Amino acid sequence: MNVILNPMVTEEVMMANAIRALTMDAVQKANSGHPGMPMGMADVAAVLFSRFITVDPTQHDWPDRDRLVLSAGHGSMLLYALNHLIGYPDMDMAEIRRFRQWGARTAGHPEYGHAQGIEVTTGPLGQGIATAVGMALAERMMAARFPDLTNHYTYVIAGDGCLMEGVGQEAIDLAGHLRLGKLIVLWDDNGITIDGDTKLSTTTDQIARFRASGWNTAVCDGHKPVEISRAIFDARASKRPTLIACRTVIGFGAPAKQGTHEVHGALLGVEEVRSARAHLGWDSAPFEVPDAVYAAFGRPARRGRDARAMWEKRFAASPNREAFVAMMKADSAPVRRPMAAFKAKLIEKSPSVATRKASEMALEVVNGVLPFTIGGSADLTGSNLTRTTGMESIAANSFAGRYIHYGIREHGMAAAMNGLALHGGFRPYGGTFLAFADYCRPAIRLAALMGIPTIFVMTHDSIGLGEDGPTHQPVETLASLRAIPNLVVLRPCDAVETAEAWEIALETRDRPVLMALSRQSLPTLRSEARTNLTASGGYVLRAAERRDVTLIATGSEVEIAWEAADRLAKAGIDAAIVSLPSFELFAAQPKAYRDEVLGEAPRIGVEAAIRMGWGEVLRPDDAFIGMTGFGASAPAPELYRQFGITADAVAETAHRLTGK
Amino acid sequence: MNVILNPMVTEEVMMANAIRALTMDAVQKANSGHPGMPMGMADVAAVLFSRFITVDPTQHDWPDRDRLVLSAGHGSMLLYALNHLIGYPDMDMAEIRRFRQWGARTAGHPEYGHAQGIEVTTGPLGQGIATAVGMALAERMMAARFPDLTNHYTYVIAGDGCLMEGVGQEAIDLAGHLRLGKLIVLWDDNGITIDGDTKLSTTTDQIARFRASGWNTAVCDGHKPVEISRAIFDARASKRPTLIACRTVIGFGAPAKQGTHEVHGALLGVEEVRSARAHLGWDSAPFEVPDAVYAAFGRPARRGRDARAMWEKRFAASPNREAFVAMMKADSAPVRRPMAAFKAKLIEKSPSVATRKASEMALEVVNGVLPFTIGGSADLTGSNLTRTTGMESIAANSFAGRYIHYGIREHGMAAAMNGLALHGGFRPYGGTFLAFADYCRPAIRLAALMGIPTIFVMTHDSIGLGEDGPTHQPVETLASLRAIPNLVVLRPCDAVETAEAWEIALETRDRPVLMALSRQSLPTLRSEARTNLTASGGYVLRAAERRDVTLIATGSEVEIAWEAADRLAKAGIDAAIVSLPSFELFAAQPKAYRDEVLGEAPRIGVEAAIRMGWGEVLRPDDAFIGMTGFGASAPAPELYRQFGITADAVAETAHRLTGK
Repeated sequence: MNVILNPMVTEEVMMANAIRALTMDAVQKANSGHPGMPMGMADVAAVLFSRFITVDPTQHDWPDRDRLVLSAGHGSMLLYALNHLIGYPDMDMAEIRRFRQWGARTAGHPEYGHAQGIEVTTGPLGQGIATAVGMALAERMMAARFPDLTNHYTYVIAGDGCLMEGVGQEAIDLAGHLRLGKLIVLWDDNGITIDGDTKLSTTTDQIARFRASGWNTAVCDGHKPVEISRAIFDARASKRPTLIACRTVIGFGAPAKQGTHEVHGALLGVEEVRSARAHLGWDSAPFEVPDAVYAAFGRPARRGRDARAMWEKRFAASPNREAFVAMMKADSAPVRRPMAAFKAKLIEKSPSVATRKASEMALEVVNGVLPFTIGGSADLTGSNLTRTTGMESIAANSFAGRYIHYGIREHGMAAAMNGLALHGGFRPYGGTFLAFADYCRPAIRLAALMGIPTIFVMTHDSIGLGEDGPTHQPVETLASLRAIPNLVVLRPCDAVETAEAWEIALETRDRPVLMALSRQSLPTLRSEARTNLTASGGYVLRAAERRDVTLIATGSEVEIAWEAADRLAKAGIDAAIVSLPSFELFAAQPKAYRDEVLGEAPRIGVEAAIRMGWGEVLRPDDAFIGMTGFGASAPAPELYRQFGITADAVAETAHRLTGK
Repeated sequence: MNVILNPMVTEEVMMANAIRALTMDAVQKANSGHPGMPMGMADVAAVLFSRFITVDPTQHDWPDRDRLVLSAGHGSMLLYALNHLIGYPDMDMAEIRRFRQWGARTAGHPEYGHAQGIEVTTGPLGQGIATAVGMALAERMMAARFPDLTNHYTYVIAGDGCLMEGVGQEAIDLAGHLRLGKLIVLWDDNGITIDGDTKLSTTTDQIARFRASGWNTAVCDGHKPVEISRAIFDARASKRPTLIACRTVIGFGAPAKQGTHEVHGALLGVEEVRSARAHLGWDSAPFEVPDAVYAAFGRPARRGRDARAMWEKRFAASPNREAFVAMMKADSAPVRRPMAAFKAKLIEKSPSVATRKASEMALEVVNGVLPFTIGGSADLTGSNLTRTTGMESIAANSFAGRYIHYGIREHGMAAAMNGLALHGGFRPYGGTFLAFADYCRPAIRLAALMGIPTIFVMTHDSIGLGEDGPTHQPVETLASLRAIPNLVVLRPCDAVETAEAWEIALETRDRPVLMALSRQSLPTLRSEARTNLTASGGYVLRAAERRDVTLIATGSEVEIAWEAADRLAKAGIDAAIVSLPSFELFAAQPKAYRDEVLGEAPRIGVEAAIRMGWGEVLRPDDAFIGMTGFGASAPAPELYRQFGITADAVAETAHRLTGK
């Protein structure tokens, strides 16, 4: 460390070394972890905290705090050390000592909700930077609405992996396009990945690449506080997002191993830790930090507390106060009455519309009442029908709108929506084709893991999309999404269920909701809408007095079951129909309710998808009518015929099962 | 069309207009399709075919043909029109007339295997360009081995979507890094996406972006044959991959609608088609093409035939002939005997190793015998253990090696592997963590849809990975992969099953295989290895004379079942153990075999994953011991205890189910 120019720098070196020491101690004790990144980026983080970041450890969720996203999540000890040193009350030394142990707040990768100051769960590379774009966008959108109450930065610490992952590019492109000037990415440019030198797999000139997407860029020596400080200072003044390439030595301070891929994700070992402590001049015992370091971190803590106090004053005096609170609360109660009226009208008119169209109709109501819903699509607006009357597009320097053209970037969209949801103030929903859920699955999974209320609107949900063929036709997609823990998948069968699905989505605050909607028109089958039956997950849509057979269907196949029931009635077979819009919500019902709904009669499941997952409601002797493989390209009615998903097939099966 | 300079150009305009006319006719007749791209890129395609491309319609699978990848797969009529006009025998006019109909070769998007001249299934955006990188890489790798027999180009027609999707960036970065000079991307730079102007969602300077990744770049007016021709000519001479930005008007030729997003994916309408025909001076009836156009396409057809004839001569005279044939055949028979010896040794030594380690051991045998296996990893080589002794790394200008550092790009890796497999000559396998299967799922799905033998090696396959926590722990991933039709998922329980899994992977030629391998060590449980029992999908690993209960487990949980059976034996309960390494292979067995294996006794399924999919082998009264939600960060043994996946839990459940 040869650039000690002034007392602040001296202090920052000490702050950085505290991060390094805690990292080494925690990894060594856990016998597991990634020391390379925290040790390499310690100087950058120390300067960021010492001079710039504005967070208040005494009120971690203060809305106008800066957001810090550790996109290179494997370097979690960097964040834990910072959060400990700056004084978040739930990150005491005991937590640092419990790094990577059962029940600890200090998980292997930062887990949102485990501790204060963890803004997002990271680890799967690229997710952090892509989520941060949503946060930085939310900041601009809130600033457009509440300029007196919103003005903060989003800082991202990213590694080579975040820049190599495709989702990173989607994020970079979107952020540059929208000129998110308060987004600052600190790239740990250490030239090392797990396999070795980055030159093994990439030669991209990252500076040029970011500039191509409209970013401001800078380069600094990541171990020289003065350079780091100047780079961040300039970045904050830029009207464009900034990439700062921080040239660092991975594992900085570990004399024998630094600068090699050996320090990325493996222990340094007792001997090397000892050498590093000597090398860094760090003579405190393991898990001990000198008071002077805590004192140094007290400065940014006070800065944050003062900033919040000033914000509280502005807030108290703001004419926008109530509106701001309402946005942050994102309470969907005001929409209940208009939605009830809308549903009553649906019952009255009984329209025949695709559920994607019904979704648009419901959204007209929702967006007309709630100011915090933010629509968008991955370039399929006219197909997903996600944009309602009067929704203005978001664009660079124009953030007052409510509709986002995410571009042909499903993954970036999903991650950005997660960021909007995490930031607060907005309830994002965004559309693509259901088959392309695969493109954004890692971000859907993270939303579920974090328990945040992102809403995914996925249309063209089966072979019913017709001619586009098997690449665009989901068959395994529903099962694969129902498999994700903590995700609610809704597949409504008509306009009423679709409206109910939107009610559920808006009232669900602790997990993501995904809607699977039809391309093709479907009749309104529900005849009353006073209670939200979709919320039960499954219910008897059409009762049968004798109930010879129970037809269980979802989405567009409920119509087919209905037609089959009509035919069966003529043949003297009494068929009940169970609509099953959500397997997850149904599974959460009491067993008695489920048993009653499913009944004792033979059951036939009908869904234009594979059978996997239907074991929940079908017994070994029950039947399933659906897909067994990929779809094909042809008009939809032809496909339903060819794949045998027809009222005839259902009726025949009912005859067979009932023996009538 | 104002640049008609010479007879060739005149002819090319006519060729392009034939593509436009057929596109309009087919879309109109199908009442469905995407006319915008084929009409916009018709001139580029005409010049490419007229002057450059070398394919032989009389032998579509000639190994040294140029590869043409329609990455913007929605423009499928461009490819079908070209393949019809140049004379592929299976693409007659009847097929063009059946565009997008049941059973037609002319599906909505190009489907590999449906017709000659379709090199890859495309439609999900970005897949084409990313797969093409694998093809272009395969070409260089074959050229390094057989310089006298390999020298062809890979042309890609890509749209804005292909460049916006993240996987596109992964592909660009990798191709630029490896300097795949014979890869030429023709970008349909029409400034229009489905939502409208590209400026709605991107302002990236694509030329600068590609240059940042080491590409050669060019710009041409996509409607001026001379400019197009010069750009392609120069691109072919470049030592770097080339992006040609073809400035085009989407829907070129439709006077009222061209240049707008209305022509992207909707019919032109009868009136506009009539106007377009007049505008283009095209007076043939629908689905009729003047002889002069066929004659013009005869020129490239002859060029291709001549080129192949010359190649056949070189081939006949080549000293490498037999080796070349062997590589293209990729027959795994030679490895059978050494693998048998290897397995016998495993039985003898009974090692306790992680299945990822066992995979490495098996690969040592495989790679030592077979020259066509190509290893790689998405920057987790030391974790996936995919590299064996003596495997040299592939690098720019150094293509003789057999190991690919794909970088932190799981999606790009999977697509590139598909390209390697499609090209022929190689059997690619590549590794990442199982949780990150989500990152490359669209490419895994395409491999399954195409029925190509890509091999995915996915390690760290459960909570058994321990401290890295829930972001890295698959729980729903196995189910979500088993859901993909035509994909074989293998989760071996010990070193013997892992060796068998490799035998299966190598002998499977018509679909992809994915292995889920443990991080943690597992004992060898098999006591004989003469027949490949894994190939049956499920089998009785430990017989029980009385069989009071059947324990069914996969992978690392078979050990737990084994321990439970030991305890149960002491308590007088006779437990059989069924190892179930592959649900798909087991489901393909005769019912009688399956019934015999599963037995009549109560069953307990054990897998450190969610229950979904286990309905295939468990009845309503059977039990399942596994996960119900996400994992956590802690040492693996602690996680197994906390989540209740233990021999104790299995034994207790057996007591309960048997009432003993």
